[in-house]
Amino acid sequence: MDERLKKQLAFALEIDKEKNIFRQTHLSGHGRNENDAEHAWHMAIMAYVLREYSNEKIDIAKVMLMCLIHDIVEIDAGDTYAYDAENLKTQKAREDAAKERIFSLLPDEQKEELIALFDEFEAFETPESKFAHAMDNLQPLMLNNSNGGADWREHEVTAQQVYGRQSKTRLGSEPLFEVVDSIIQQNIANGQIRED
Amino acid sequence: MDERLKKQLAFALEIDKEKNIFRQTHLSGHGRNENDAEHAWHMAIMAYVLREYSNEKIDIAKVMLMCLIHDIVEIDAGDTYAYDAENLKTQKAREDAAKERIFSLLPDEQKEELIALFDEFEAFETPESKFAHAMDNLQPLMLNNSNGGADWREHEVTAQQVYGRQSKTRLGSEPLFEVVDSIIQQNIANGQIRED
Repeated sequence: MDERLKKQLAFALEIDKEKNIFRQTHLSGHGRNENDAEHAWHMAIMAYVLREYSNEKIDIAKVMLMCLIHDIVEIDAGDTYAYDAENLKTQKAREDAAKERIFSLLPDEQKEELIALFDEFEAFETPESKFAHAMDNLQPLMLNNSNGGADWREHEVTAQQVYGRQSKTRLGSEPLFEVVDSIIQQNIANGQIRED
Repeated sequence: MDERLKKQLAFALEIDKEKNIFRQTHLSGHGRNENDAEHAWHMAIMAYVLREYSNEKIDIAKVMLMCLIHDIVEIDAGDTYAYDAENLKTQKAREDAAKERIFSLLPDEQKEELIALFDEFEAFETPESKFAHAMDNLQPLMLNNSNGGADWREHEVTAQQVYGRQSKTRLGSEPLFEVVDSIIQQNIANGQIRED
């Protein structure tokens, strides 16, 4: 087998480990914790189905690929819960090291391409990145809401924290932020999200 | 919320159930059984990274979306193991009913679009479908091989059965079939795959 294909297959096998990285979100039906690979799959399909709600014109194929790869670094860096202030401080350094190691398994130009896409997602500047972030926020909110807001209650999350995170959703999609806002308001009213 | 968005979000929530459909394949590192959502995620990224090996020119965005949705019907129909002759007989009828129910959650034109894509995958005629099938075959073979061929041994799979399935891989990608062929030969030599 030639060296190039060998590298590509090594990367393909390595990312299998993303299925072992578990998140705080629970599956609908009060299921188990969700893992990163499932989350990315769900985001990519949602991006496609909901693409008409992007605030700006987007390259949907790019958004989908961004969704699919955005958590690969967590194979080494672990999942950092969106409301865990302590771990959020070290998140960038841990993810940078992981990014270098994991994407280096690929041939150079593919490494560069996927790192650029990962960095674009993180930078939150392009229309594609903003819509991908909207999916990254909407998807767990939808699951959590389907479970009666249990994840918020368990972590004693406040309205300020949820709105802090979901403000990014508005920058990707005004119509989807309206849905998010209405879900947050219901969960504040029900006492699942703490008022500040 | 308008009716159209409500339908799209109902579909988005429904497909969460695909994460509870488990396959015969085990994750690398002798892990647990893999589920359909993870498998689809893995296939879509592999399709992107390995797209240069397609026998024919392909629309890679279409291949990726095809990979992502190809197992949604298994939410109702369940996973049918590739070497389970009895269940293979009823697979089509079970999957047709599931396809109608699940995609009908979407607005009509999105239902039609995704059903057409699912049918295109199943029909195995277009270059995109052939390359997506190559991923559907290569991905579990790669995982199984990384675990020393344990899944083949457990199910007492024969060389004829494996080659029967993997013949489709060749139609999507000659270079990837060479890799597959070499892995099969090693696993026959090691006694993980039964000689006929």
